Amino acid sequence: MEYRLSDRIKDLKGNAIREIFKLLQQPDFISFAGGFPTKELLPTEIVKEITTDIMNGKEAADVLQYGGTEGYMPFRKTACDYVKRYGIDGIDIDNVLIVSGGQQTIDLMCKAFVNKGDTVLVEDPTYLASLHILKTYEANAVGVKSGEDGLDLTDLEEKIKKYAPKMLYVVPTFSNPTGRTYSVEKRKAIAEITYKYNVMVLEDDPYSELRFEGERVPSLKSFEVGDNVVYSTSFSKTVAPGLRTGIAVGPKEVIRKLTIGKQAVDVHTSSLSQAILNEYIKRGYVDERLKVMIPVYREKKNAMIEAIKKYMPKEFKYTDPQGGLFIFGEFDKSLGIDCETLFPEICKYKVAYVSGVSFYADGSGRNTIRLNYSNATLEQIDDGIKRMGEFFKDIINNNK
Amino acid sequence: MEYRLSDRIKDLKGNAIREIFKLLQQPDFISFAGGFPTKELLPTEIVKEITTDIMNGKEAADVLQYGGTEGYMPFRKTACDYVKRYGIDGIDIDNVLIVSGGQQTIDLMCKAFVNKGDTVLVEDPTYLASLHILKTYEANAVGVKSGEDGLDLTDLEEKIKKYAPKMLYVVPTFSNPTGRTYSVEKRKAIAEITYKYNVMVLEDDPYSELRFEGERVPSLKSFEVGDNVVYSTSFSKTVAPGLRTGIAVGPKEVIRKLTIGKQAVDVHTSSLSQAILNEYIKRGYVDERLKVMIPVYREKKNAMIEAIKKYMPKEFKYTDPQGGLFIFGEFDKSLGIDCETLFPEICKYKVAYVSGVSFYADGSGRNTIRLNYSNATLEQIDDGIKRMGEFFKDIINNNK
Repeated sequence: MEYRLSDRIKDLKGNAIREIFKLLQQPDFISFAGGFPTKELLPTEIVKEITTDIMNGKEAADVLQYGGTEGYMPFRKTACDYVKRYGIDGIDIDNVLIVSGGQQTIDLMCKAFVNKGDTVLVEDPTYLASLHILKTYEANAVGVKSGEDGLDLTDLEEKIKKYAPKMLYVVPTFSNPTGRTYSVEKRKAIAEITYKYNVMVLEDDPYSELRFEGERVPSLKSFEVGDNVVYSTSFSKTVAPGLRTGIAVGPKEVIRKLTIGKQAVDVHTSSLSQAILNEYIKRGYVDERLKVMIPVYREKKNAMIEAIKKYMPKEFKYTDPQGGLFIFGEFDKSLGIDCETLFPEICKYKVAYVSGVSFYADGSGRNTIRLNYSNATLEQIDDGIKRMGEFFKDIINNNK
Repeated sequence: MEYRLSDRIKDLKGNAIREIFKLLQQPDFISFAGGFPTKELLPTEIVKEITTDIMNGKEAADVLQYGGTEGYMPFRKTACDYVKRYGIDGIDIDNVLIVSGGQQTIDLMCKAFVNKGDTVLVEDPTYLASLHILKTYEANAVGVKSGEDGLDLTDLEEKIKKYAPKMLYVVPTFSNPTGRTYSVEKRKAIAEITYKYNVMVLEDDPYSELRFEGERVPSLKSFEVGDNVVYSTSFSKTVAPGLRTGIAVGPKEVIRKLTIGKQAVDVHTSSLSQAILNEYIKRGYVDERLKVMIPVYREKKNAMIEAIKKYMPKEFKYTDPQGGLFIFGEFDKSLGIDCETLFPEICKYKVAYVSGVSFYADGSGRNTIRLNYSNATLEQIDDGIKRMGEFFKDIINNNK
C-alpha cells in the first residue's frame, strides 16, 4: 500500500541518537554516543522505597487514576519551590506544567508558537532533538554563532532582525553538545534582546545540577526583563530518565497554551512518575544523591580528557566542561575528515560517537563529534578513546 | 506581552472533559462527566508488589534508564501475544509501538498522515479528544452518520468520495460516547471500503474488555484486507489510567513513522509504567481483575438505567450499552433543550454530564448528553440522576 503520509513526516529520518540507541545494544560495544546517566547510579532502592510508601498511603488510588493535565497537584507545588535553586522565584502553580521529560517542552512550545515556515533560532551547535522536533513542525531552524561564553550577541540580533523568529532555543548551562556555559552577562543580554524583539526563549536546563567544577550560574529565566522566557528542567539526568518527567515554568498565559497542547498529546504525565519524583525531592534525595553522583561524573570526565590527550591525534581540539555529560571535539577542516561518513567505519571498531552534523541547523559540522563520558566505565573510556585515536590517526596519515 | 502564537493554538479552547475535570474537584459534586474507572478498583496492592519485584530484579536499572522509543523490549514481546485476544495475529515486535496512553496513538497518526486542511472522517458522535487533536493539526474533521450497529456505509463511501480523507477514526466497541458496538458485518465492510479508497483506519479500542453482557466481537483490524488499519488499545480502563500506557499495532512502515513522530514528542513512554504493565499481564492479573471489575460496572450501569427510567423525563431517549463506560442520551429536538448552554445551570445542582456538542465534528448535538456511570457510587448515581431529572423536567415544563 502506498501511504499518503504527511509532508512533515514523509521524508523525515529518525533522530540520530535514537537510531544509534538500537546499534548500541550489542555486547562489548563502547558507546560515547547517547546521553545516558551512569547506570549504577540509578536509584533503584529509593524508587522501591518511595513507591511502596505511596501505594501504602492514602493517595495511592489517586496516583493510579486520571490526573490533571497541568500535573499532579502536590508535585506542582513542590516544583514551585524546587526551581528556586535556579534563581526562579515568585511563581505559583499556574506558572508550572509537568511534562513527560524535558524534551516534551520543546515539542509543546513549537505546537504553541510555530507555524509551518516560521523561523526558530538555535545555537550552533545545538541539541539534536530540538532540530528533529523543528522538522516535525516544518519550521525554519537557523543557527546562531556561539563561543566560549555563549551566543554571539551581534549575530543573534542580526538574525532576529533578518528572520523575525518566533523563538530562540538554548541550553545555557553545560550545553548539549559542547558542555559550555553562558556567562551571566550573556544571559542578561539575551533576555534583553529577545524581549525587545518579542522573541520567546526556551531555556532547556537538564544538566546544571551535574556541576563538578566552578560556580553555579542562575538560570537565564532569572534575568528575564519581560514575560518571554520558558524554563524547562528534567529529572532524566539528576534522578532517572526512565520516569520521563520534567518541569516547565513560564508565563501563565503561555503555560495555559502549552497545557491545551499537552491535553491533545498525552493527557497528562504518568502520575506514578510524578508522585515518585515529588517524594524524591521532599525526602531530600536530590542533594543527597548528587553528592554521590558528581564525583563519579568528574572522574569520568577527567578520565576522558586524559585519554583524549593520550590517544587522540594532536589535531583534535575539544572542550573541557565543568559539568554535564559531553565533550565536543573538532578536527581542523583542512584535514578533510568527515565524521559523518566515517561513522559506519568506526562502528566496526565497536566504538561510537555522535557525528556533529546532527547538531547543526545547516548541516555543517561534519568535522566535529560529540563524546559522552557518563555511560562508559573508566576502563571503557580508556579503551574506547584508544580505539578511536588509532582510527583517526590512521585516517590522518592516509590523507597525507 | 503580545504572544505570537501559532495558528493551531491561538484560538483553541481546552478539551471540554479536561476543563470539567477541574470543576469536579469540588466535594459533594456528583460527576457523570469524565471517563474515570472506579477508583476503588484501581490495583494499588498489585502495583506495589510488582514495583518491588522489578526494583529487586536484575532489570531494575534498565527500567530507570533511557529506553528505546519503540518501547521496553519485554513489553513489546508481551504485547504481540496480548493483542491475540482481539483477533490480531501473525505480528512481530516491529508491528508494535508502546504509547503514552491510547490517546497518543491519535496524535501520532495525525502527525504521520495529516497535513493542514486534510480531511479525517470520524463517527457522529465521536470521542471528543479526537476532535481536539484534529484541531491541533488544523485538519478538517467530518462526521459520518452512525446507527445501532455502526457507521452508515453509504454515508461513509459518499464522504470518502467527496473528501478523499486521509484517515477514518472509529471506536467500534462500546463507542465513546454512545456505548454502541459495530457488528462484524460493518467491521468487514469498513475494512474493505477504506482499503479500496486508500484511507487509513485508526481503530481505538480502550473499552472492549469491560463487557458485562453479550458476546465478544473481534477487532476491526482482524478483518483488514490490506495494510491500512492501526489498532490502538490502552490500559487506562483495564488497569490504571495514571500509568499512561497503551499499545499501537499496525503495518511496519506505519509503525516506523509513528516511532519517528514519537521520538520528537516524548522520547519514549515511562519504562516503569511499561515494566509494571508487562508483569501485570504476565502474572495473569488482567483476567483475574476483570472478573472483579465487570460485575461492579454492570451493577453501576444497571443502576443508572434504573435511575434514568425513574427520574428522567419520558422525552429523554438513551442507549443501553453491553459494556464500556457511557450512556448517551438525547432530547427530541422539538423540545428546544440546549444541553450546552444549560451546563453551567446544572452545575449549580452539583451534578454534571458532558454536553454532547463536544462529540460532534460539526458542532451539532446540542440536544444530547453523555453520562458516565463508573466514577460514581450507586447512591450517587441515584441521587445525581434524580437531581438531573428534576432539572430537566422543570426545563420542559417551563418551555411548554
